[in-house]
Amino acid sequence: MSTKTKQKVHNYSAGPCILPSTVFEKASAAVLDLDGSGLSILEISHRSKPFVAIMEKARALVKELLDVPEGYSILFLGGGASTGFFLVPMNYMKVGGKAAYTDTGTWASNAIKEAQGFGEVDVVASSADKDHTYIPKGHPIPSGVDYFHFTSNNTIYGTQYKDLPTSSDGTPVICDMSSDIFSRPVNVADFAMIYAGAQKNMGPAGTTLYIVKDELLGRTGRSLGNMMDLRNHIKKESMFNTPPVYPVYVSMLTLEWMKEQGGVKAMQERSEARAGLLYGAIDELPLFEGTTAREDRSSMNATFRLTNTALEETFDAAWKEAGISGLRGHRSVGGYRASMYNALPLESVQVLVDVMHEFAKKNG
Amino acid sequence: MSTKTKQKVHNYSAGPCILPSTVFEKASAAVLDLDGSGLSILEISHRSKPFVAIMEKARALVKELLDVPEGYSILFLGGGASTGFFLVPMNYMKVGGKAAYTDTGTWASNAIKEAQGFGEVDVVASSADKDHTYIPKGHPIPSGVDYFHFTSNNTIYGTQYKDLPTSSDGTPVICDMSSDIFSRPVNVADFAMIYAGAQKNMGPAGTTLYIVKDELLGRTGRSLGNMMDLRNHIKKESMFNTPPVYPVYVSMLTLEWMKEQGGVKAMQERSEARAGLLYGAIDELPLFEGTTAREDRSSMNATFRLTNTALEETFDAAWKEAGISGLRGHRSVGGYRASMYNALPLESVQVLVDVMHEFAKKNG
Repeated sequence: MSTKTKQKVHNYSAGPCILPSTVFEKASAAVLDLDGSGLSILEISHRSKPFVAIMEKARALVKELLDVPEGYSILFLGGGASTGFFLVPMNYMKVGGKAAYTDTGTWASNAIKEAQGFGEVDVVASSADKDHTYIPKGHPIPSGVDYFHFTSNNTIYGTQYKDLPTSSDGTPVICDMSSDIFSRPVNVADFAMIYAGAQKNMGPAGTTLYIVKDELLGRTGRSLGNMMDLRNHIKKESMFNTPPVYPVYVSMLTLEWMKEQGGVKAMQERSEARAGLLYGAIDELPLFEGTTAREDRSSMNATFRLTNTALEETFDAAWKEAGISGLRGHRSVGGYRASMYNALPLESVQVLVDVMHEFAKKNG
Repeated sequence: MSTKTKQKVHNYSAGPCILPSTVFEKASAAVLDLDGSGLSILEISHRSKPFVAIMEKARALVKELLDVPEGYSILFLGGGASTGFFLVPMNYMKVGGKAAYTDTGTWASNAIKEAQGFGEVDVVASSADKDHTYIPKGHPIPSGVDYFHFTSNNTIYGTQYKDLPTSSDGTPVICDMSSDIFSRPVNVADFAMIYAGAQKNMGPAGTTLYIVKDELLGRTGRSLGNMMDLRNHIKKESMFNTPPVYPVYVSMLTLEWMKEQGGVKAMQERSEARAGLLYGAIDELPLFEGTTAREDRSSMNATFRLTNTALEETFDAAWKEAGISGLRGHRSVGGYRASMYNALPLESVQVLVDVMHEFAKKNG
């Protein structure tokens, strides 16, 4: 419990989630006075020099951290990834067209539902037969579809694609990376579009990152209006309308922190250390069991349960006593979920693992 | 200049804009620790008890401040009012339908453009013939359209509807009140929908308020998918997807401040005092002239110019010296614009008026 003084609460929230404490400090100070300007970050114009610089820096940091190649645009837009579910078919599915999706859980299903409003959706693989406790593999990425869409990490179920599907024949691949972006290197060139709500590894709720291959836009034959046409946002560098200033600012600070810490490679090492420590305890202690296929275990969201559910109250009291928060599983699946995003210190995982061992000793 | 110590900068920004200093203080503190929870407002789950309470409080405050009648739902969604431009025809224009709009400036035109993607748009009145320097009056609200849409205050041009158009035959009336909501009482029952981006009188950029008459939804015959169907957001009380937590929180604080200050009536009195003081100086001093029709002058955004534009540099130096910021007109129209939203102290207007008088004395 020696780490408890260092961090008030061990926050395992699934998103919005823990961010680096230095980010909280800078983000708090800027609400009173942004960099000595005498103005709050909340009251400056989005067209002011300081904010234009913040937006540019955020985009440059994404480019650098993910090694985004030429020919891609980086956008920070308002709304969440759920708005992205709508923007994807609107911008990529041809009129009378067809798209392929994998259904690996709630958010993947929601993405499918939006696409069905625009045309035919071929669900090429689904994990629904086993309550989404695994990642379907070995399925084809069909040719002749306008795009293929998948969700790289499934926050609710705790599964994650370890090998990201790629297309061999040029079918545009689109990925919702909301809950594992910036946790490992990714070859952006494999994708037509990557999008991610900020509120996991990148920042607070309120903005969504889009990384878009420019040349694939504008091919649907659909009238897109203004706001839903990604090309307008690219043209205006995410300033087509007033962007969500503060969420973008805090995302920029968090991206800056990632870079200072050694970038995505360093994030991956830490992530593997956290996941190794926690899954190790789950596998070692007979009182606990993981809920997903081992090879598909998410390094972001570890889902597990007690083998004796009668002990849940006792276990809950123990982790709450240790200053742990947000460990309960999603209301739709129950059990436990330890969300271990980039900013979660290994020490917080050690606190949880200590609680688990002590609990096992007393109740085993 | 005695007020300068009280307020570091006199912020006339057109939005995002000044908010009350007590709001900045609370909003800054909550980034470090929300109400003694040990957690930052940026890292708590949107489904946590504290945030659910914040969202409920924000909605209750809107209901109270605007005296919203039964049968209306109040939503805080991600995205800006420009997303609202899209949501309006999507949710209200029937397939093969028709809507009526007035074109009173840039934002009204943008709203029209989105609607044109869905069906026929009848522009029943426009101020484009005189560079949007007045509000067209006396036009009919046509029957037989799915809805009538107008923009109550035109931020860029500095015009404002003093009498809000109402329908005598039940045509649904929809209003974009982004830049003057909460500055005066409004009879919500006259409207099918009112919407407003937060970043003027209500809060920071990143959320949009929707006040929606429930019974008028779901009549378009259009497949709306999930995210774009306002009924889904109503059903889930603005938690259909992760809401923009911090922008909603700061909006709640600002709404709370408005209530403490005496509500919308008090905001109106202050607004009239500010506008009276500034327009008084514009009319009194021959070096200045207002740019809009007098009867349509906005109490939120006062637009004016120098009668001798050769003196602009001298004037700019004078107001900057006095600690004034954000007085330049929108890049599309030039001149000057003093945005005087709810949180702008009368003292800030006095500082500007003093500068104008001194400038007139020296250069008159």
